[in-house]
Amino acid sequence: MAEELSELIEEFVEAEASEQAAVAESILAEEEAEDIALLLESLPINERLALWHKIPQQERVEVLVEMRSDPRESLIDQMQLEELDALFVGLNAVDLVELSESLPNRLVERALRAMDEQQRSYFEGAQKYADDLAGHWVDHDVLILPTNAKVRDALRLLRREVPDLTEIVYLVNRSGHFSGAVKITSLFSALDHAPLAELVDKDIEILQGSLDAVEAAQEVQSSSLAALPVVDEQGKLLGRIDVVTAAELVSEAFEAQLMASAGMDEDEDLFAPVLKSAKSRAVWLGINLLTAFLASWVIGMFEATIEQVVALAVLMPVVASMGGISGSQTLTLIIRGLALGQVTGANLKALLKKELSVGGFNGVLWAIVISVVTYFWFESALIGLVIGIAILINICAAAISGVVIPVVLDKLKVDPALSGSVILTTVTDVVGFFAFLGLGSLILL
Amino acid sequence: MAEELSELIEEFVEAEASEQAAVAESILAEEEAEDIALLLESLPINERLALWHKIPQQERVEVLVEMRSDPRESLIDQMQLEELDALFVGLNAVDLVELSESLPNRLVERALRAMDEQQRSYFEGAQKYADDLAGHWVDHDVLILPTNAKVRDALRLLRREVPDLTEIVYLVNRSGHFSGAVKITSLFSALDHAPLAELVDKDIEILQGSLDAVEAAQEVQSSSLAALPVVDEQGKLLGRIDVVTAAELVSEAFEAQLMASAGMDEDEDLFAPVLKSAKSRAVWLGINLLTAFLASWVIGMFEATIEQVVALAVLMPVVASMGGISGSQTLTLIIRGLALGQVTGANLKALLKKELSVGGFNGVLWAIVISVVTYFWFESALIGLVIGIAILINICAAAISGVVIPVVLDKLKVDPALSGSVILTTVTDVVGFFAFLGLGSLILL
Repeated sequence: MAEELSELIEEFVEAEASEQAAVAESILAEEEAEDIALLLESLPINERLALWHKIPQQERVEVLVEMRSDPRESLIDQMQLEELDALFVGLNAVDLVELSESLPNRLVERALRAMDEQQRSYFEGAQKYADDLAGHWVDHDVLILPTNAKVRDALRLLRREVPDLTEIVYLVNRSGHFSGAVKITSLFSALDHAPLAELVDKDIEILQGSLDAVEAAQEVQSSSLAALPVVDEQGKLLGRIDVVTAAELVSEAFEAQLMASAGMDEDEDLFAPVLKSAKSRAVWLGINLLTAFLASWVIGMFEATIEQVVALAVLMPVVASMGGISGSQTLTLIIRGLALGQVTGANLKALLKKELSVGGFNGVLWAIVISVVTYFWFESALIGLVIGIAILINICAAAISGVVIPVVLDKLKVDPALSGSVILTTVTDVVGFFAFLGLGSLILL
Repeated sequence: MAEELSELIEEFVEAEASEQAAVAESILAEEEAEDIALLLESLPINERLALWHKIPQQERVEVLVEMRSDPRESLIDQMQLEELDALFVGLNAVDLVELSESLPNRLVERALRAMDEQQRSYFEGAQKYADDLAGHWVDHDVLILPTNAKVRDALRLLRREVPDLTEIVYLVNRSGHFSGAVKITSLFSALDHAPLAELVDKDIEILQGSLDAVEAAQEVQSSSLAALPVVDEQGKLLGRIDVVTAAELVSEAFEAQLMASAGMDEDEDLFAPVLKSAKSRAVWLGINLLTAFLASWVIGMFEATIEQVVALAVLMPVVASMGGISGSQTLTLIIRGLALGQVTGANLKALLKKELSVGGFNGVLWAIVISVVTYFWFESALIGLVIGIAILINICAAAISGVVIPVVLDKLKVDPALSGSVILTTVTDVVGFFAFLGLGSLILL
């Protein structure tokens, strides 16, 4: 997929440069909405707009829904009210749920007024759940029959147009409460007049609308079914989450984790306006600057020592970076463990012991290596001794921090993927510089 | 899922501590193989072995298959030959494909001898493809009929036991070549004696066995089908990849990317033996040490300058870390773009221009802030000037490196998620120290 997209971008950009309008049209005719969305995101804003205007009216919503919200907003911001109104004609609830992330409230209301009543009520149902909950992401492409229906009713229903990923017929009682699900494959061996209630598959998991959306998605992915039913607290059927939606939710969560490690958002636009992008990144740089000044302040306490033994200043990056790298290894392992639920109070002590042992082992190993190199470089056994001890202290401190910091952040409901590494490097910088320069003052002066 | 698992671990560890054997048994009886696998991975090695031995024989293979290969090996290493032989009884090809990652060759051969011929040929078929290709990961739970079969043949087949995630009947000609797929939902409205060939759904995508496994998985996830057929170069049906397998492949790829950023493996065991873990991490620390010494060497060139202006040594971490952080933001954005196929030769120049503009903007902003702070801290306008220029240079260099480094690595077929950030920080350290101390020598001495 990635390679195909790259080729598509090359083809499109080349064609635009040589003004072959037909290429864009053939791309738009052949590719799926998902790929056109990725293509749009890959283009600088002017080219993005030019391509957008070539997309046929009836395909625009589908493409827009597939886009990340930042690049999507870059298009919506350029649209006239009439253009938006044209998008809103025949819009369904699921699409509006996705688009509403990028629409100001007054436009959401405009879109709602253009919707039929059924879709509007679906949309309002979804809005009752925050966007990190399962109930927000249900679709309504389900085959529903009353609880007392017979096999022949199901067969009649299945002879009409059947939605994608339909493996199940949902049974619902008069008040809309979910009463069971029947696999359509079990219909083949059933008698026409048999009640569907007898064929209900008890093993089908039912998701609560208030369940975390990513956890719900993972349940769907490991369910051996193409979709699972979602119900509200009263047991009313809200809809389903299918494997396509589940895959999107899980991918977004992973991507968000990856981007968070650099203080960015999953929705970050590759070609965001410079000012917007600079502003969003400045915050992260500012936080980092505070921690860097903290490290400088620690060094500042030892100015007199450095003045006398400049070798200490030369070697500072070695101490800081060995701590930072070994800490980030532990941190990454623990963050994954937390995400999977594998790190808990019950095994924390054992984990700390193991990571500290690994740190102790690597601490001793690299302390020796670095001491020897330092000895030959600066021809001073004492400087070698100082850096060796500092390395050992810092790598052990890094191991402890790598376990403790993400666990504490997780307890405080702060995403460790976002702030874990900033806090960790602050600790390893401060501990490293303090140990190294402090020992230097004690031993070398 | 994550929270449930945490509770499970707590419950299990507490029960073991108070010797309530019944708790482990009830966990094993109630939980699915996937959760038991995660639980095993979350336990230190002795507890892990104790729980393993309580798992009923007939469920062991399923649990083992769900585990990551490192922790799985920790169990296999402890097994006697008889215990392994018991696992191999009735083993199917798909399970052996997964287990063979953690089994020495002689054990794979032992397992193959215990298999029936059909499964052995499936296994050999899968081994023709490397483990990063789609053909390696097919399963064989497909309903197959001859190309000339009728609707009633399909209905007869569907009245028997139907595999999970079955939406499709596959048509295959006499020589095993795939000739089309029929959705079972289209059978409901068809006549009994109609030929299946007339109902073939032309829109169903067919995957090549030689396609990259993760790309194949993504195709399955966005296909609106619960599984897609996989064929070899001659068009012979190899099997299918379903959404459950696809979700596992995609999650593993994401996890591998996350772990690679700290120089680790997706299969890393939370409770790996200390020595093994220390060894695997030492390599990464060693590579990092070389780059840290490179930075030290740059600083060493300016020893005389530092001796006279110690403030430079104090402020070094600020210059290095502002470069490192802003570079890692660009790097992360580009790595995601490369993974999605959104960064290509065609938009590289535009990206470079945009990132450099963002860098220039933040460079000027933070240069001013840091200059002012430095001026008040060290009461020297000249030191403020020096650090300001150095910050601007380093943030711009970081922006360029953040784009160029991952693109070049990708061209060289090296994973930018693995080595991108080490190379980037080397560049920002070297450029930062050189600019800062070099300017210091020119302006301050």
